[in-house]
Amino acid sequence: MRASYRSAGVEYAIRDVVVPATELIKRGATITNFNIGDPNKYDFETPQHMIEALCAAARQHEMGYAASEGIPELREAILAFEHSAKGLDTTVDNIVVSDGVSEGIQMLMGATVNKGDEVLVPGPAYSPYTSQTKYFDGTPVVFNSIEEDNWACDIDDIRAKITDKTKALVLITPNNPTGAVMPKRDVKDIVDLCGEHDLYIISDEIYDRIIFEGEHHSPATYSKDVPVVLINGFSKLYLVPGWRVGYMAFQDPEGRMTDIIEGVKKYARLRICSNTPCQLACIEALKGPQDHIPAMVEKLRQRRDFMYQRFNEIEGIECSLPQGAFYMFPKLTHPAWKSDKQFVLDVLHDCHILFVHGSGFSPDQGSGHFRAVFLPPNEVTEEALERLERYMDAKRQ
Amino acid sequence: MRASYRSAGVEYAIRDVVVPATELIKRGATITNFNIGDPNKYDFETPQHMIEALCAAARQHEMGYAASEGIPELREAILAFEHSAKGLDTTVDNIVVSDGVSEGIQMLMGATVNKGDEVLVPGPAYSPYTSQTKYFDGTPVVFNSIEEDNWACDIDDIRAKITDKTKALVLITPNNPTGAVMPKRDVKDIVDLCGEHDLYIISDEIYDRIIFEGEHHSPATYSKDVPVVLINGFSKLYLVPGWRVGYMAFQDPEGRMTDIIEGVKKYARLRICSNTPCQLACIEALKGPQDHIPAMVEKLRQRRDFMYQRFNEIEGIECSLPQGAFYMFPKLTHPAWKSDKQFVLDVLHDCHILFVHGSGFSPDQGSGHFRAVFLPPNEVTEEALERLERYMDAKRQ
Repeated sequence: MRASYRSAGVEYAIRDVVVPATELIKRGATITNFNIGDPNKYDFETPQHMIEALCAAARQHEMGYAASEGIPELREAILAFEHSAKGLDTTVDNIVVSDGVSEGIQMLMGATVNKGDEVLVPGPAYSPYTSQTKYFDGTPVVFNSIEEDNWACDIDDIRAKITDKTKALVLITPNNPTGAVMPKRDVKDIVDLCGEHDLYIISDEIYDRIIFEGEHHSPATYSKDVPVVLINGFSKLYLVPGWRVGYMAFQDPEGRMTDIIEGVKKYARLRICSNTPCQLACIEALKGPQDHIPAMVEKLRQRRDFMYQRFNEIEGIECSLPQGAFYMFPKLTHPAWKSDKQFVLDVLHDCHILFVHGSGFSPDQGSGHFRAVFLPPNEVTEEALERLERYMDAKRQ
Repeated sequence: MRASYRSAGVEYAIRDVVVPATELIKRGATITNFNIGDPNKYDFETPQHMIEALCAAARQHEMGYAASEGIPELREAILAFEHSAKGLDTTVDNIVVSDGVSEGIQMLMGATVNKGDEVLVPGPAYSPYTSQTKYFDGTPVVFNSIEEDNWACDIDDIRAKITDKTKALVLITPNNPTGAVMPKRDVKDIVDLCGEHDLYIISDEIYDRIIFEGEHHSPATYSKDVPVVLINGFSKLYLVPGWRVGYMAFQDPEGRMTDIIEGVKKYARLRICSNTPCQLACIEALKGPQDHIPAMVEKLRQRRDFMYQRFNEIEGIECSLPQGAFYMFPKLTHPAWKSDKQFVLDVLHDCHILFVHGSGFSPDQGSGHFRAVFLPPNEVTEEALERLERYMDAKRQ
């Protein structure tokens, strides 16, 4: 009994490296984790009012199924936030709540992609955009980012890769794994380009308020008629990754995506609904106190600065400064490793430090790099990178 | 911008009828709902210790991502329960927690079905088994149930419909929408038949402990070597449908499904994890008090008996007695309606009573029927069916 050919295309490097790490842990090793974008795994805590909101929801509401598209009051709060922050121009009907951003990507690709359809995805990028495109028999077409220019999107490369099979273009700003924040000019240029070629934009903005340099710019702000699917969620900023509450907001003033939106909603009904108590508690996320956010960003900025400096001190590693999110994407220049995946596995086995190989974020554009989260406290980073440096120096002999 | 052709095959009759009902409610109507299998929408309440378990989980644990396959302690509790109740013979490694049964079906079909592969599905049946098969370009092949024999599976029809493209066979016992409980003999015969033809069995047992007549029999109990995927969840029996916690347990002693199980796990990693706090609270479901279950079954038995009697008093409706779950699947014999869907829409608009059309559960085998849940209190059922009876009598004039 063979698995579907589709299964062969399902890859998620971030979790796949956990498999050998778990083996090591079973044998008694202690691993220093720089691999997973989950602040709660480090010294970041869910704001207390969110926890209380979850308890209150469980006690005050019945725990039955919710509306398939999401709890109306949550969808209204989402619309109010995205409208006031970015000028999102849509209606509550065009907001769909999903089990994290992950399920949103699945529902959207499932409703969009026929065999052979192409979706433009930045390289490197959070891998579910390519995996889910392939899962539905589509072809992800990866466009370049310019490392020397803070990993900016290569707009000429995008233009060159648009064909008559291209259906949509993915943007991620701030980017996972590079930490790049798109400048306004690039966002506007890409909106225009998509308008010329009748593409819609999938804009992943899950890190929209974790910005260290410049400002966050959403294509929703600058698009008049080009349809934008704004993807966002509560996991990172409200420190509830395990609640799995994300959403899609369709800004589609001319109704060009109506058929695709209806496809997403039909699928939403098929899987019944997202988690009821966590959706209820997320209303409180948007309406309650927001003061943990600047504190979190400041803490992250200090850790970013420290890790950036420390990586650049290591011979064989070069790193550009992330402008947002909590990821660093250093380049490996050490002569001992030809493959970033081998480097990550060697460092895991020999130093008990876990990164994610860059090729897991795009075989070409991510190759020769690795991803590290700057979520651990500086003393943990210091100790681990000290070990890493000694190990890499020894490999040079 | 057109939706994928795949979207056209996504149907979920149970929620699709909610769309016109919502329109009526917006215009001020009050609808009596017999359409949705959610006990919490009626006078069934989540056991208090489950609510407290959710609060305790939120307060005591970090709310980060969980293991992709599910929280280990929950998977151990699931294995212990299914082993002791049904003799399930597998390991914790072969248990995967999903966002409700819904996501389990998606992950399983996604990992199994290539274009043109066939999956045998009972008719009538809970519709996601057919919808998800089609979503992945497979062909659901519906086999008959014998209404006169308490909706038993027609094993001759199954045998006749097995081809060299058949990959798996779905059983649902107790069945949704018919309430049929499979006799031991049929379960054993089907296990043998699947063994002869190298099929694996998908066994949906979400209503396993809501039984009024006979006993629940799982194919896992009677299979030695034929792989069984036991699908179950906490929604119905523990009255937490909105928590969306389900699971798949793979009993595959000869390792024939290894490739498919790995496909499911790869997908589980891609979507990161299921809801953390609700998974933690579900450990308490299996380990805590179970005394609400007999009370719930007794309450349902009284409602079943009442609704069964009342439907059979109405001219133009004939109904067999459900042996389990909380669904009744009456046959429409009234001359005024040729189509069950038209009947459901007419009754919605004219009587403000909502059922689900039987053809939504299988175009052929469900046609001429409708599904009603016997979850409302008897006085609600009495009042609504009184109205229905007068309406149907008037239509006869």
